[in-house]
Amino acid sequence: MRLRKVKGASEAILNSKYVILNPKENKGNWNKIFNNNNKELHIEIGMGKGDFIKNHAIRDTHINFIGIEKFDSVIVRAIEKIEEEELNNLKLIRMDAKEIEEVFENEVDVLYLNFSDPWPKNRHEDRRLSSKKFLDRYESIFKNAKTIIMKTDNRKLFEFSLISFVNQGYKLEELSLDLYNDDYKDNIPTEYETKFKNRGQNIYMVKAVKM
Amino acid sequence: MRLRKVKGASEAILNSKYVILNPKENKGNWNKIFNNNNKELHIEIGMGKGDFIKNHAIRDTHINFIGIEKFDSVIVRAIEKIEEEELNNLKLIRMDAKEIEEVFENEVDVLYLNFSDPWPKNRHEDRRLSSKKFLDRYESIFKNAKTIIMKTDNRKLFEFSLISFVNQGYKLEELSLDLYNDDYKDNIPTEYETKFKNRGQNIYMVKAVKM
Repeated sequence: MRLRKVKGASEAILNSKYVILNPKENKGNWNKIFNNNNKELHIEIGMGKGDFIKNHAIRDTHINFIGIEKFDSVIVRAIEKIEEEELNNLKLIRMDAKEIEEVFENEVDVLYLNFSDPWPKNRHEDRRLSSKKFLDRYESIFKNAKTIIMKTDNRKLFEFSLISFVNQGYKLEELSLDLYNDDYKDNIPTEYETKFKNRGQNIYMVKAVKM
Repeated sequence: MRLRKVKGASEAILNSKYVILNPKENKGNWNKIFNNNNKELHIEIGMGKGDFIKNHAIRDTHINFIGIEKFDSVIVRAIEKIEEEELNNLKLIRMDAKEIEEVFENEVDVLYLNFSDPWPKNRHEDRRLSSKKFLDRYESIFKNAKTIIMKTDNRKLFEFSLISFVNQGYKLEELSLDLYNDDYKDNIPTEYETKFKNRGQNIYMVKAVKM
């Protein structure tokens, strides 16, 4: 994603009712900060402009959602869109995913990784959100079965990720090497997904689960 | 593969120096029937017209190869091509892969599955050579690490196979979702592979290993 400075970015983040500013304070107690009785918590790392997580929250009101994004200039775009909605099952966090263990503990049901940065150079392998390094960080955040649902158009990242998931003990529960030629009625596209799909590019999807 | 009756098929099979007619008699002792000191044994189930296994045998003279094929009319085509060569590290067997456990025991190093029949209907799942049913049959044939190298152009079969391998405890050691866009110098193509590739179709490849 190309980044540009968004004027007033920090202010929008500070003032949004959706953004949680001190996320580490809620570690282990995330479902309590939502004004509902939902039991399930799904998070997305790298939510970008937020279409996926927002539409998920609108559709699945029985689940709580948290969108995570590193960059001010990106999260502010998501805030603009989400502020229009009245959603009591969605929150946003601006943070680096490297700190994920300090923010969640035994409480996440599903982790979404959508069109993550492929970090194509070998020496940047550890920065990929599906690397062993990151899978180790996710170990303590899940409540029960560790469930990661990944979508990408990047073939090399997908090949790497499948091998990485399996080597870390995940099973593959669902797999599509061409999502839009399969019958996935429940799919919620991201902004990038729609763009890539319209260009005729393959979208890959996997649901990896570790018991 | 379209099958047609080949005149004199059985005779060619009976007379070929490459074909082993009573394979069950060699169970556990396959490397002894080769006139060499090779230690490794690689087999291909569904060798078709035999280009892959023949060229493998020509290139890797330090390995013994056995090509397995169910249909007389197909194996006879392989015999025609192979009879031209003088290879002491290649044998052929006409048999149904369902009986594989009765033919090999603790002696196979690598199993190749190339462009296997996808059996697209759910009720035929057990007939796919990468199904749980077949993976169970392969359990006793391997010497040490169970190594399966699969290539196919069939997306659904490949998705099914990855899930099946992983669920049966295999790790994914190598994986390509577009073999001809990767740098696989050592690849030996089958007849079908070359045809499909020239039509612009994707070739998928996986090396799955179970310790």
